[in-house]
Amino acid sequence: MAGKDLPVSPLALPLPEMPPIEGVLLGSAEAGIRYKAREDVTMMVFPAGTTVAGVFTKNKCPGAPVDWCRDALKGGKARALVVTAGNSNVFTGKAGRQTCAETARAMAELAGCKPREVFLASTGVIGERLPTEKLTAALPPLHARLHADGWGAAARSIMTTDTFPKGSVRTAKIGDTTVTVAGIAKGSGMIAPDMATMLSFLATDAKIPAGALQALLSKGVGPSFNAVTVDSDTSTSDTVLLFATGAAKHPRVPADGGAMLKDFKRALNEVLMDLALMVARDGEGAQKLIRIDVTGAVTAKSAYRIGMSIANSPLVKTAIAGEDANWGRIVMAVGKAGEPADRDRLSVAVGGTWMAREGGVIPGYDEAPVVAHMKGREVEITVDIGLGRGKATVWTCDLTHGYIDINGSYRS
Amino acid sequence: MAGKDLPVSPLALPLPEMPPIEGVLLGSAEAGIRYKAREDVTMMVFPAGTTVAGVFTKNKCPGAPVDWCRDALKGGKARALVVTAGNSNVFTGKAGRQTCAETARAMAELAGCKPREVFLASTGVIGERLPTEKLTAALPPLHARLHADGWGAAARSIMTTDTFPKGSVRTAKIGDTTVTVAGIAKGSGMIAPDMATMLSFLATDAKIPAGALQALLSKGVGPSFNAVTVDSDTSTSDTVLLFATGAAKHPRVPADGGAMLKDFKRALNEVLMDLALMVARDGEGAQKLIRIDVTGAVTAKSAYRIGMSIANSPLVKTAIAGEDANWGRIVMAVGKAGEPADRDRLSVAVGGTWMAREGGVIPGYDEAPVVAHMKGREVEITVDIGLGRGKATVWTCDLTHGYIDINGSYRS
Repeated sequence: MAGKDLPVSPLALPLPEMPPIEGVLLGSAEAGIRYKAREDVTMMVFPAGTTVAGVFTKNKCPGAPVDWCRDALKGGKARALVVTAGNSNVFTGKAGRQTCAETARAMAELAGCKPREVFLASTGVIGERLPTEKLTAALPPLHARLHADGWGAAARSIMTTDTFPKGSVRTAKIGDTTVTVAGIAKGSGMIAPDMATMLSFLATDAKIPAGALQALLSKGVGPSFNAVTVDSDTSTSDTVLLFATGAAKHPRVPADGGAMLKDFKRALNEVLMDLALMVARDGEGAQKLIRIDVTGAVTAKSAYRIGMSIANSPLVKTAIAGEDANWGRIVMAVGKAGEPADRDRLSVAVGGTWMAREGGVIPGYDEAPVVAHMKGREVEITVDIGLGRGKATVWTCDLTHGYIDINGSYRS
Repeated sequence: MAGKDLPVSPLALPLPEMPPIEGVLLGSAEAGIRYKAREDVTMMVFPAGTTVAGVFTKNKCPGAPVDWCRDALKGGKARALVVTAGNSNVFTGKAGRQTCAETARAMAELAGCKPREVFLASTGVIGERLPTEKLTAALPPLHARLHADGWGAAARSIMTTDTFPKGSVRTAKIGDTTVTVAGIAKGSGMIAPDMATMLSFLATDAKIPAGALQALLSKGVGPSFNAVTVDSDTSTSDTVLLFATGAAKHPRVPADGGAMLKDFKRALNEVLMDLALMVARDGEGAQKLIRIDVTGAVTAKSAYRIGMSIANSPLVKTAIAGEDANWGRIVMAVGKAGEPADRDRLSVAVGGTWMAREGGVIPGYDEAPVVAHMKGREVEITVDIGLGRGKATVWTCDLTHGYIDINGSYRS
């Protein structure tokens, strides 16, 4: 597979130390689903009482595992997670649904729970049957050797075209008790359905009611995973799941969460943000991480859409790859967003230097800091729309020959 | 400039014989606006009584010439057109508006008309002042040597990153009289604001009231120019203008056009379609022309949006560049369009071979004709949504290293 031979992204960050999360046992194994000689199935088990929250792709053609999780999530409880890499089990019809049911049944038997307490995710090629027997045969030996220390290995085994494993950990206080939130993610196109769906799995030892957990996660993905785009393409399998084992001894959290979870929310949001930015840093072919701040839009939503229009513009992304602070293309991308904008009130800055304002270039602006900024690994674009107070920040990477190499080659 | 050194697109078509259009005198000249040693200003003049119709970019940050034309179009009459290549006069503030006013005034003096009967278009870099004096100085000598045979030269002089000149001609009957419609176009990204805005200028010797002419043009761009995308980016300068000189002697066309214009409409639509497809054929870096037919959507608009979602998907376009009939990415692009779709009713064909149907791959479909089709210069994708009767056809090209080369290099 392409992923194995790719050079590590120049924007890669090291995997942090990932301590155990009390209650979580995990591990990974070689099931031989598609890849040879690498771990491709990942398992987590959780104690009774574990709550779960999830967010999923908005793609109208989701994979069978996404349908499965959406349904299972209604129960709010989780005892196990099974993730496969190499085959996404998408557009596999009835066979794909059967794979989910059989995997969940086999896992439930091992974990001593109901199938609907088993969560599933898959990433890899679309439209090929997942070899269910290989997967279910791999589960018992893997289950027999789960341990608390498998986070790093798990971060690796869920990878497809990723060039580095992605993990993040934070601690937080609930009352006087310290709890931990850990997460791993994979993804290097916002999607490449062949390979590079975005998956993320987080766990905490905090004890948080499912409703409150879901509210935190749903809100947390807004400025993080939903603010990152690589190529505008939306996976059929994108999945973020957050498990709370409840092993930590802290005062009881009310059903609606509330003020008690303030610090936990901060920690969760930091982990989500870390992981989302790592996905952008591993964008297929990425050489530069791009931050786009939009201010002065009529609403926050409008600012977000303008930001995404810039972030998804092939012309903006290729200009940045060429280290060209081409604010003309940024103006174009603002204008094509379909959101309220007035050419004559628009301002554009790159790396903090304002280059264009009020419908024209700023005469004699200092090009030197702009040129220097464009040569760096991290590029910042600021656009002020000049109409209101709506603002948003989104992230992307540049569009390079590497993207074409990865995605324009034959499938096998 | 990039355009000068690019190899001609392998999808190029030859420029047809372009006969004079009665009433139209045209020519081109070197004004030295940006390019050296090539013609970069194009002029057309029309007789009194010439009507005009126009459609323009929907980008919210249009160039000054677009604002000028929108305003001039209210009069419905035209006596001259001035087009410049190399500088788009976009995001040039007050100076840009002055350039338009001065150019129109100078041209009006030469043509003996009002400035508002002069139409303007510019394409090229954004945000640099157009050297007005160079342009206005070039107008009188150019005007002195206009002739009826300049269509081929005009098709060349409006080019920027285009690799071949684009023109099309058709004849039609109005009553028993034969009239001609001719058009030229330039564009090779749906936009690259530096260079590659889409401009098209058409003329006919028919005598058609401005309202009827506008209705025909507005409708005609739907399945042609508005159904073509190269990179999803929308120019700040896109302009299509249609001039009717009225030199032909045919029965009077009523204000609302009507049945009398049926054959003219056919001819106009054919010219528009020819020119639009030539733009796709010259898409930056294009190696393959891609036709996408969407059927079975809930409405025609929904079918169009699904088609554009496929046509603009970098993953679909890179797969086709790699000659990979990756229907999984097509399924993904359908699902991300945000339009009604049901994974389990969806069918996908490539080159007429159905590969996926009812939520899964068609077992044992014949890969040989698909593989052969993908090696060709023209790739056809058909998607049946299975929900209704809405259909649409859109066109694009593949996404190759050439696109990155053209757009990822420094501006100068």
